[in-house]
Amino acid sequence: MIKNSGSVSESHPMNGGDGTYSYTKNSYLQRAATNVAKAKMDDAIAEKLDVTSECTFRIADLGCSVGPNTLIAVQNIIDAVQHKYQLSQAPASHTPEFQVFFNDHASNDFNTLFASLPPKRPYFAAAAPGSFHGRLFPESSLHFVHSSYALQWLSKVPEELLNKNSASWNKGRVHYTSAPDEVAHAYTTQFAEDMVVFLDARAKELVMGGLMVIIMPAISNGIPHSRVPAGLMFDLLGFSLMDMAKEGLISEAQVDSFNLPVYAASAKEITELVERNGCFSIERMEITTPTSSIDGPASGQACTMHMRAGMEGIITKHFGAEIIDQLFHRFHNKIEEFSGLLESVHKEKTQIFIVLKRV
Amino acid sequence: MIKNSGSVSESHPMNGGDGTYSYTKNSYLQRAATNVAKAKMDDAIAEKLDVTSECTFRIADLGCSVGPNTLIAVQNIIDAVQHKYQLSQAPASHTPEFQVFFNDHASNDFNTLFASLPPKRPYFAAAAPGSFHGRLFPESSLHFVHSSYALQWLSKVPEELLNKNSASWNKGRVHYTSAPDEVAHAYTTQFAEDMVVFLDARAKELVMGGLMVIIMPAISNGIPHSRVPAGLMFDLLGFSLMDMAKEGLISEAQVDSFNLPVYAASAKEITELVERNGCFSIERMEITTPTSSIDGPASGQACTMHMRAGMEGIITKHFGAEIIDQLFHRFHNKIEEFSGLLESVHKEKTQIFIVLKRV
Repeated sequence: MIKNSGSVSESHPMNGGDGTYSYTKNSYLQRAATNVAKAKMDDAIAEKLDVTSECTFRIADLGCSVGPNTLIAVQNIIDAVQHKYQLSQAPASHTPEFQVFFNDHASNDFNTLFASLPPKRPYFAAAAPGSFHGRLFPESSLHFVHSSYALQWLSKVPEELLNKNSASWNKGRVHYTSAPDEVAHAYTTQFAEDMVVFLDARAKELVMGGLMVIIMPAISNGIPHSRVPAGLMFDLLGFSLMDMAKEGLISEAQVDSFNLPVYAASAKEITELVERNGCFSIERMEITTPTSSIDGPASGQACTMHMRAGMEGIITKHFGAEIIDQLFHRFHNKIEEFSGLLESVHKEKTQIFIVLKRV
Repeated sequence: MIKNSGSVSESHPMNGGDGTYSYTKNSYLQRAATNVAKAKMDDAIAEKLDVTSECTFRIADLGCSVGPNTLIAVQNIIDAVQHKYQLSQAPASHTPEFQVFFNDHASNDFNTLFASLPPKRPYFAAAAPGSFHGRLFPESSLHFVHSSYALQWLSKVPEELLNKNSASWNKGRVHYTSAPDEVAHAYTTQFAEDMVVFLDARAKELVMGGLMVIIMPAISNGIPHSRVPAGLMFDLLGFSLMDMAKEGLISEAQVDSFNLPVYAASAKEITELVERNGCFSIERMEITTPTSSIDGPASGQACTMHMRAGMEGIITKHFGAEIIDQLFHRFHNKIEEFSGLLESVHKEKTQIFIVLKRV
């Protein structure tokens, strides 16, 4: 049996469809990441990709969600690969056909994604459902793996956060931001375990010489998590939930047992994990600044919609759908209340761009 | 650009989800086809499949709908292929990994299909959205193609059926059953055109030596279409619609412009089309009897649910959702009314089982 961990890894799909609170309509921060990555990815493909005589070039986008970002990213990759093949000495007939695998959890809204595929596209489209914390593809079958804003999702909440007798019990918070070191350490350990599985699976799936581009939230060395926008926003979400608990709308125990399984790693951590795996060379790794941060402060409304599109699923699963509207109303007010603090945090260098090569 | 005809071919997905009228709950006639085909497919794989040293064995199920039949068929294929590899002299390490592509129109309910994938499965699952009347996969990338009860769907209604000045104008009917020869001829021509495209695409996608198994409704030479159950049922659907038109619930023009794009070919037609394509050898072709026919007469209720699960989508698209309940109520009554006739029609030899090999 193929150990696809779709059965063991938790799935928290982004909001499906294309309505007001959908990921489709509220993923422009992730799209900004895609845009800033384009030039870097073009360079990586131009410099690092091996041109081969294989007739099919297979691409996987891991954690694709429902679009449109995944479609833009995939088109960028194909444009760059075609350009590279055209510049090479190989005859035109050797430019490969492209097959693209859109991957996300089986509970992702693939119907919406398929409906938005361009009718004329330079690739054969396929979806590969399942957790990327496990094998998804046959051995040596992929030539390029892309994953943008997905690897920050852990396969599960670290178990010790729920243990009242543990120093990692995360009482009254929903994340490691502003939490004791033991809580952050539990997250760090879980991320490392997940990356071991992730890198091991990808090492099997990528052909020798194949490239993997990863873009994800990250933290610069020495910056506390509470001093980056995402960390602060998770704190504000926790405050909003605790306010509701104090008013008796939900229980404190519910908040205590809820934790967001997302983590921002440092370049140092990732480097160590890749080196420990041993199957990839690090061709590029840089901490970058999302363009959305450069474009000036996001509005409270925009931050709220962004948080809701990404987190409504996981919050609903734990607390029920009936609290959602009120929670995000309160969250919006918290953002207004703490706007001064949000202005002051480090908005730069909160994203990492990585190019790995299978060696 | 890849000419995926998803954009030009009409799509009429089976009813999604898993509710009362869903295809999932009302596709046991198609499942009976899967069951009767298992032994034949096992034989074909045992006798005709070439064991190779490739490390991935890729299977596509074309027109998979939402399950569970596709999952059963795919498991049958893999069991038979594994058995063949085990019996061959190749060392055990050479038993390939399996990748399965579930194909149907992009509007098919893939979310439901993905939710029903077995958590432990001996294959990597993928979906390939798009019409099989066009390319879906890279060149020489498939080892086994399976298609059960899908190729009877034409890519579109033959255009001349809608032309009032044509001898093929199909006034007052929804199918070629009981229609003038010109109408049946238009269907025959459309089926031939579709098969040319289908076989051409599959010839490119299958590796040399790869197998394609097709199961579809068929007609024995010399039997009129009105004397097989499906043909008679389409007539009864047409009568029900015409009754509603006479009562002014819909217009006659609406019925005149509605035609079911489904066709039952003969072994002779299919043989000629495969030979004209020239890329496949016919390893087996036999007209068979669906097991459901052997099991005794289906109830009027069962026939109605079966017809509704398959045809509700296309009828709704043309007439609107508001007529559906009443239409199938009337259809059910027609089946009761004509039960004697239904008993008397030829229920045997209404299915064809074909094994083609890419040569």
